[in-house]
Amino acid sequence: MSSASPSQVRLARRLKDRKFRATTGEFLAEGAPTVREALAAGAVVRVLASADACASYPDLTAEADELSEEQVAELSDTVAPQGIFAICRTPQADLGQVLAKDSSLVVICSQIRDPGNLGTVIRCADAFGADGVILTTGSVDWTNPKTVRASVGSVFHLPIVSSVTCADAVTQAKEAGFTVVASDVSGTEITEVVGQGSFDSQVAWIMGNEAWGLPQEKDLADVVVRIPMWGQAESLNLSVAAGICLFISAMRQRLLNAEDINDEY
Amino acid sequence: MSSASPSQVRLARRLKDRKFRATTGEFLAEGAPTVREALAAGAVVRVLASADACASYPDLTAEADELSEEQVAELSDTVAPQGIFAICRTPQADLGQVLAKDSSLVVICSQIRDPGNLGTVIRCADAFGADGVILTTGSVDWTNPKTVRASVGSVFHLPIVSSVTCADAVTQAKEAGFTVVASDVSGTEITEVVGQGSFDSQVAWIMGNEAWGLPQEKDLADVVVRIPMWGQAESLNLSVAAGICLFISAMRQRLLNAEDINDEY
Repeated sequence: MSSASPSQVRLARRLKDRKFRATTGEFLAEGAPTVREALAAGAVVRVLASADACASYPDLTAEADELSEEQVAELSDTVAPQGIFAICRTPQADLGQVLAKDSSLVVICSQIRDPGNLGTVIRCADAFGADGVILTTGSVDWTNPKTVRASVGSVFHLPIVSSVTCADAVTQAKEAGFTVVASDVSGTEITEVVGQGSFDSQVAWIMGNEAWGLPQEKDLADVVVRIPMWGQAESLNLSVAAGICLFISAMRQRLLNAEDINDEY
Repeated sequence: MSSASPSQVRLARRLKDRKFRATTGEFLAEGAPTVREALAAGAVVRVLASADACASYPDLTAEADELSEEQVAELSDTVAPQGIFAICRTPQADLGQVLAKDSSLVVICSQIRDPGNLGTVIRCADAFGADGVILTTGSVDWTNPKTVRASVGSVFHLPIVSSVTCADAVTQAKEAGFTVVASDVSGTEITEVVGQGSFDSQVAWIMGNEAWGLPQEKDLADVVVRIPMWGQAESLNLSVAAGICLFISAMRQRLLNAEDINDEY
């Protein structure tokens, strides 16, 4: 194993900068679980790891360049770094791919600003079998280290399209046959909506900004739903709300598909 | 309005330290929404605010001591501080109060280590009408600034009991008539469990550690449930899982109560 050159480390460190990521089309993934998913997705340009990390994760570091502990600290975004990083190619995806005929569940993130929230929403989308995620203009860049880490590898599992206006995303989703559903406190209770058919075919969810929700964007949707609450909290964390919405609509689609299959026999 | 004395600011700053919080029985709440909830709960010892914050939030700062911008930066736990803080008394709660006869929903957090996750779980518990939260020994201290902030005021809305072993919490919950339900990937699908009566009366959820779940603790539960997933993500974020579990069981209880009420007429 060879030591990482100072210029390699400098380049890796510069990937903390959004503009540099955009220019190079690369980003930095940190931590063993994330590096494992990056390798499985064929997205890795280079693995960088400390001697300790090479010993702990031999399966991930066969072709790694070695980092000193000082270089690990320089690159890491965490308090207790595992000492393993991958420089990854940013996968390219387009709206047509996400809104394809065989897509059944899509998430439109409207101006989500918190990197951790975005990563957790992407992880939820992956968990509940979504076919892709669309980030509107004004959203945080999904290739930033906090989002990549919060997604726990999910950024490598499904196509993510950036910099689309919410209006364009909704128009194209509707043209592709999706029912567009917005999550907003002003909506109808989600438990009522389930029985009304809105989740029965292709569903595109719009999830709004942490602080201000979906003031205009919800008017673009076919249906607006809210999650009922019974305590004193005024709202739910964005990723919790996304998790509940995605789970309920995906569950409905699965149940209907199971019934269709049973009907055939 | 008088300026905060250096010794007041020093005391407030020391509240970042867990031991000092335990000694004084006080903690620091930051940000206008959280300070508002602290005031409404009657938990505030003293409000500290910058001149700008006093101008922005006159309703919260009537009796505030004024901070310089340097002092705000010293006390703040955020990148863009709002400049308003409250020194709060840590409310005391005991298991008997949380596991009371009229409690219907309780959350036992087993060794949750991430302060933000814990705050979000407390916010979910509040949102879905839980009657209290129990933190087992080995959990992060809920009075730390990140947890208080992530709860968005919910720490002031429901009783929180700390430093109970999971075994003790479960034993007492069962004695009080609760069905104890653990969330773990090894469990039965939650959608199946709903119909089996486990959520029909008092429910105490055990939510496990972010990394290792509930290796032993789940054996203490009456029922173990899992949230079905259909993508490539191996697990859900802890607070998302908690949100889904609490929503589904609270919804079930509400539906049954509504039926009971309808039956009476």
